Amino acid sequence: MELISENRAFGGRHLRYTHDAKSTNCSMTFAIYLPPFASAEKPVPVLYWLSGLTCNDQNFMQKAGAMKLAAELGMAIVAPDTSPRGEGVPDNENGAYDFGLGAGFYVDATQTPWKAHYQMYSYVTEELPSDVEQHFPVTKERAISGHSMGGHGALVAGLRNPNRYVSVSAFSPVSNPSDCPWGQKALSQYLGDEQSAWDEYDAAKIIASKNHAIPLLVEQGNSDEFLSEQLKPLALVQAAQQSDTQLTLNMHEGYDHSYFFIASFIEDHLEFHAGHLGLI
Amino acid sequence: MELISENRAFGGRHLRYTHDAKSTNCSMTFAIYLPPFASAEKPVPVLYWLSGLTCNDQNFMQKAGAMKLAAELGMAIVAPDTSPRGEGVPDNENGAYDFGLGAGFYVDATQTPWKAHYQMYSYVTEELPSDVEQHFPVTKERAISGHSMGGHGALVAGLRNPNRYVSVSAFSPVSNPSDCPWGQKALSQYLGDEQSAWDEYDAAKIIASKNHAIPLLVEQGNSDEFLSEQLKPLALVQAAQQSDTQLTLNMHEGYDHSYFFIASFIEDHLEFHAGHLGLI
Repeated sequence: MELISENRAFGGRHLRYTHDAKSTNCSMTFAIYLPPFASAEKPVPVLYWLSGLTCNDQNFMQKAGAMKLAAELGMAIVAPDTSPRGEGVPDNENGAYDFGLGAGFYVDATQTPWKAHYQMYSYVTEELPSDVEQHFPVTKERAISGHSMGGHGALVAGLRNPNRYVSVSAFSPVSNPSDCPWGQKALSQYLGDEQSAWDEYDAAKIIASKNHAIPLLVEQGNSDEFLSEQLKPLALVQAAQQSDTQLTLNMHEGYDHSYFFIASFIEDHLEFHAGHLGLI
Repeated sequence: MELISENRAFGGRHLRYTHDAKSTNCSMTFAIYLPPFASAEKPVPVLYWLSGLTCNDQNFMQKAGAMKLAAELGMAIVAPDTSPRGEGVPDNENGAYDFGLGAGFYVDATQTPWKAHYQMYSYVTEELPSDVEQHFPVTKERAISGHSMGGHGALVAGLRNPNRYVSVSAFSPVSNPSDCPWGQKALSQYLGDEQSAWDEYDAAKIIASKNHAIPLLVEQGNSDEFLSEQLKPLALVQAAQQSDTQLTLNMHEGYDHSYFFIASFIEDHLEFHAGHLGLI
C-alpha cells in the first residue's frame, strides 16, 4: 500500500493510497478520511462511499463537505475509485462516459474483455474493506452510501451483505438498472444479455425479492435531470411495499443531481449511519 | 447579465453568470450563493471571495463547504474569476500557472499588453459589486476574503477600501508580493519594473504605511509548501506592529495549502465577517 498524498483536515487526515488489488487485477487508488484521535487503541467505524459515473476517489472528499461532522462523530470515510484503471484495462471504444473507465457499476463482470479487471463488486465489498481494516485504525463496523451509479452500488452491496454493513443509504441512486438506459447498457456488456444475471445487481429487484431488515435511507432531488429516465426511485418504494421492507425516501423540491445536493444533506446521512454504528 | 447554471444548495441558490465587464473589457464569469429567504424586501450582505492561482469562480463554491453556515447566517457569497479570459485576452507564452490567465493578481495592469484587460482590482472592488448590487437582493454591506493570490487580493482590496468593506480575512495569503517570486514575476510584468508602483498592491507595505482600523484575520497552515518562499505571513505581523494595526494571524500545525485547510476553518471566517456585518 503506497501513500500518494496526505492533507490535514478538520483535525484529522485525508490520505490517498494506491494498492495492488487481486480482485480487479490492477493497481487501485482510494482515499480515506481518518478523524482526529483514531488510533489502534481507539479504532473507528467506517462509512464507505461509492461515487457516480466519471468520478474517482476525490469527488466526494473534495465536494461533499462530510469531513467536519465525520471528525466530530469519530467516523472514518473510505472512497474507492469507480472502476479499475491503468495499462491493460479495457475501456469503451467511443469515449462514452457511462461505460468502461469511471463506470464500473460495482458489478463483477462475467463477459470478455471486461471480466479480467471489472470486478468492482468484490473489490468494494471484500478486498478493499479487508485491506483497510488491516492497515488503518478502524473497526469492522461498516456502513455504505453512494451517489447515482454509486447509490446503486451502495444499495446492492448493503442489501446483499447485511452481515457486512450496519446501514445503507444513497443519494439519487440508479434504483432499477434493469429498466433504464445506463443500467441496460452496462449490465448487458458486463454481465451478458441473460437478464436473470442482472437481478442480483438491481436494488429494486433485490428489495422486492424478500423482506430486508438493514436500515435504508434514500435522498432524491425532484429537479434531478436524470430522475425519470435513469434513477426511478419510486421503483424502490414499490419494491419495499411488495416485500414489507422498511425504506425511507426523502424527495427534495428543486434539488438536482449535483454535489450541491449531496452536500446539502450529507450530514443527515452521516447521522443516520452514526446511529447504527453506535456513535450517537 | 446571463445565467449559466443554477443549483439549489442548503435551501438557497448557487448561480453562475457571465456579464460584459467594462473594466476588464471582456465577458467575465462569476458565481453567487444566495441564502434562503434573500429577497428584495430582505436583502442580505455579501462576502466576496477571491481565489488563488489557476482557480476560477467554482473552486470555492464546490470545495470550501461554506454554504451551510452562509445559509444559516443569511449571507451571500460572490466568487469572481481570477483573471480576464476569452478571445483577445493575452496569456503568458510558456504555459506557466503563475502569470496571465488564472493569475490576474487582482491588480490594474499598467503595462502593454496586459493593461487592455487585466484590470482585476477595479473589477473586484468596483464593477462587480456594483453589478451584483444592481441585480441581486443584497445590501451594500460587504466583507472580503480569499486564498493565496486571492488572500493577497482580499487584503489589498480591504485595506485600501475600508469604506467599502466592513472586514477582511485571508487564508494563506501572498503577504508581501514585492518580496517573493510569484509577486515579483507578476507585479513586474503587470506594473513595470518601478517598484514604487508595487507598493499599493503589497499588503505588508500597506499595513506598515499607517494604522488601519479595518478588522483583519489571517489563517495559515505551518505545513504549507509555499509558506517560506511565497507567502511570508510574518511580514504582516511585523508590518502591523510597525503601524500599531490590529491583526490576528492563526498558525495551524500540520495544515497545507489545499482546500482541505480552507474548509477546516472557513466557518471561523464566516462568523468573523458575520459579526462585522451585523448578522450575529
